[in-house]
Amino acid sequence: MDINEAKNNFRDIISKLNAFNHAAGVIYLDALTAAPSDTAEGRGKTLGILSRYMYDLSTGEPTRETVKYLLENTDKLDERLIRELKEFDRENEYMRSIPAEEYVEFTVLLNEADAVWHKAKEQNNFASFCPYLEKIFDTNRKFANYYKPGEDAYDVLLDRYERGMNKETLDKFFRSLRERIVPLIKKISQAPPIDDSFLHEEYPIYKQREFSDYLMKVMGIDRTHCGIAETEHPFTTNFNRKDVRITTHYHLNDFTRSMYSVIHEGGHATYELNCGEQYDGTAISGGNSMSIHESQSRFYENIVGRSREFIEYIYPEICRIFPDQTAGHSAEDFYRAINKSEPSLIRIYADELTYPLHIMVRYEIEKAVISGQAKVEDLPDLWAEKMKEYLGVTVPDDTRGVLQDSHWSGGSVGYFPSYALGSAYGAQMLQAMKKDIDFTAAVKEGNLAPIVGWLTDKLYRHC
Amino acid sequence: MDINEAKNNFRDIISKLNAFNHAAGVIYLDALTAAPSDTAEGRGKTLGILSRYMYDLSTGEPTRETVKYLLENTDKLDERLIRELKEFDRENEYMRSIPAEEYVEFTVLLNEADAVWHKAKEQNNFASFCPYLEKIFDTNRKFANYYKPGEDAYDVLLDRYERGMNKETLDKFFRSLRERIVPLIKKISQAPPIDDSFLHEEYPIYKQREFSDYLMKVMGIDRTHCGIAETEHPFTTNFNRKDVRITTHYHLNDFTRSMYSVIHEGGHATYELNCGEQYDGTAISGGNSMSIHESQSRFYENIVGRSREFIEYIYPEICRIFPDQTAGHSAEDFYRAINKSEPSLIRIYADELTYPLHIMVRYEIEKAVISGQAKVEDLPDLWAEKMKEYLGVTVPDDTRGVLQDSHWSGGSVGYFPSYALGSAYGAQMLQAMKKDIDFTAAVKEGNLAPIVGWLTDKLYRHC
Repeated sequence: MDINEAKNNFRDIISKLNAFNHAAGVIYLDALTAAPSDTAEGRGKTLGILSRYMYDLSTGEPTRETVKYLLENTDKLDERLIRELKEFDRENEYMRSIPAEEYVEFTVLLNEADAVWHKAKEQNNFASFCPYLEKIFDTNRKFANYYKPGEDAYDVLLDRYERGMNKETLDKFFRSLRERIVPLIKKISQAPPIDDSFLHEEYPIYKQREFSDYLMKVMGIDRTHCGIAETEHPFTTNFNRKDVRITTHYHLNDFTRSMYSVIHEGGHATYELNCGEQYDGTAISGGNSMSIHESQSRFYENIVGRSREFIEYIYPEICRIFPDQTAGHSAEDFYRAINKSEPSLIRIYADELTYPLHIMVRYEIEKAVISGQAKVEDLPDLWAEKMKEYLGVTVPDDTRGVLQDSHWSGGSVGYFPSYALGSAYGAQMLQAMKKDIDFTAAVKEGNLAPIVGWLTDKLYRHC
Repeated sequence: MDINEAKNNFRDIISKLNAFNHAAGVIYLDALTAAPSDTAEGRGKTLGILSRYMYDLSTGEPTRETVKYLLENTDKLDERLIRELKEFDRENEYMRSIPAEEYVEFTVLLNEADAVWHKAKEQNNFASFCPYLEKIFDTNRKFANYYKPGEDAYDVLLDRYERGMNKETLDKFFRSLRERIVPLIKKISQAPPIDDSFLHEEYPIYKQREFSDYLMKVMGIDRTHCGIAETEHPFTTNFNRKDVRITTHYHLNDFTRSMYSVIHEGGHATYELNCGEQYDGTAISGGNSMSIHESQSRFYENIVGRSREFIEYIYPEICRIFPDQTAGHSAEDFYRAINKSEPSLIRIYADELTYPLHIMVRYEIEKAVISGQAKVEDLPDLWAEKMKEYLGVTVPDDTRGVLQDSHWSGGSVGYFPSYALGSAYGAQMLQAMKKDIDFTAAVKEGNLAPIVGWLTDKLYRHC
């Protein structure tokens, strides 16, 4: 093997892996947005076969030899390729530590688990999902041990989403958050209540769809490269820098749920759409740290989307599309209503202040299950207990409790802290941004270009 | 290799090919129903890589040896496997005749061509699509010559969609159709005109969506295994017997366009959903002959869907969803309006009688281009000429002319006659069916189960 041959081999491997990732990604997107309910079986077979190809391609002898050869000859390579090789090798070390059969089995399991979770959530039936959730937690623990034997499994999982993160840091982070948030929530609870009942009138779905298109426009999202679909639990996915998809979920009697889902997911999309062209088709394209990714979604959702200036800018359009529902309510009423802080049941619709407490509940549960201190079968009770303790709310059913999120059924354990970290990162970015540009003026004019420009320069283009 | 090893190898190859077909199929479905407009580039790379895997897997030495070995030992195999091997080998003979690079290039070309066609149709810009269409016709001719050198290329193409079909048979078939249809159309043109203006009022899209769900229900289609999406040019696709998708296109001022697309595509779906379980995951799953497939779509569209009994059954629901638009119009008015026969521009919305003339136009153009008698750049004129000659209509633009269908941009040359043959087959099936069941009574009661049951027994279950 000479250096050019090795470089070509590497490019070829990455292209093939990107193709498999793209294919599997479209299958997941379809599964979550368009596929009929009882189609998981055939999809599982296909995903199993594709994941086996990906595993073999990633971990096989030819790939290992190529990467080894290149890493031994870094003096002949440019910096970007070296970074790519190191990232690829790091990810591969993880994959190689897992036996092929178990890797494929987990893919197939997750496909089934998603279908079971959907029905379990719909029917408030935790028992049907419990065996899947047990396997998912067990597999996460097992894979963490394969990868870093002897290390704390939950620390290993946290590090997969946010490099260098661990329980020690997060415990401190959440402790300091709790110390400030809990008294603030108490204080707010004594203030006169805010009337947000007009947000709960009927907002026809087809009109909400029209409003989503408007929001995407205000966010400056290029629709020729970004689609919007509907799903149970909103998420964003991207196949490459020029093909990004967000999703939302419309609620007839809760207008702002989809509104803030679209802005949140639109933040993820803005990141991906503005990644640097030079990383296209490489192993380091797209956003890497999940917390940084969530910093963007949370930045647009809360810092932009819940600001008085933003609401004042978009409110006339809301009134145009929903004249009856908004009659007699001013932009200020709307602004106050969407910033109402009140302990609630559902994380993704929680206000900015109580939101981190939802994350803490999940963080502590994950910690407890991975360490073996809690059993999966007890999670509904544990969930209710912690929600009572932190937020003071009574969980009426598992649909609005332990079954609400799609992360666990999707196989992710250790992801949730990314949201809280992201919210904090976003606030820090705002401070830095304000030194360079007039954030408030930009939002007031409904022209987010200077904000997107600043973030592209400092963050997005670096992937 | 022993017989069991060979059988296992073969099953493994088929499973992998099914997985690749499934993945590519979902990518196509997404491209045509959900993907943002400017995402073809990344998709092309992925489809190119997947198609190369499929080509190598299908035509590679290990596969050829396995199939050869099994075909030499048919005495040790059951009949179904022998049939599967023969079908697989037949299809592979075709693939093997094409050089790998050209096979992959064609896949990538078609992905691009679809995107270009969409825009060309939207902008009435044949010139932009012309070079792609030239390549598509040229490639079809070239592939036909690779496969059966010395044979007539268009005959070879026709045979790919309907085994044994050729120009000689079709010329006769179309001649006899023309002889009967043309005088009938003339006679009808002298009858008093039918007023169908109420079908062209505004029918809000979100209500048409609701009506589609109703139609699917009446057709007895199991929605847990069959989805419905929206696209430019309606089609049906299936990933396996339990995952079928139809598509439609809603027109605000032309209610029955989507209505009959749903019934047409619903016919395709009914076929696939009722295929025999024993063929799952084999090389002979799903409908095979395209004319037989179209016989089902056309059977439901015309024989069921345009019958007086069907309209009488569904009309109350139409009135419920669209009370304003249907006010003052009876089921009989509706029945007459949807059966109005009048030469028109668009094939898929043509009435039952004039429809075959649209097919003839395409058939003659394909014949002329493949044989070299016509040039692709002249097709807009040729199209207009033939539409004038057969249907007496003036083609106002290419959007409603040569650019209207998606078959050529999708790479299919020789497919169109399947629709006309399918219509004829469907009529013959009706005659046979009526000997066994009371077709009219079933439709009248809105219970298509006996019809689906008969077709399943005689046709669907045999794939």
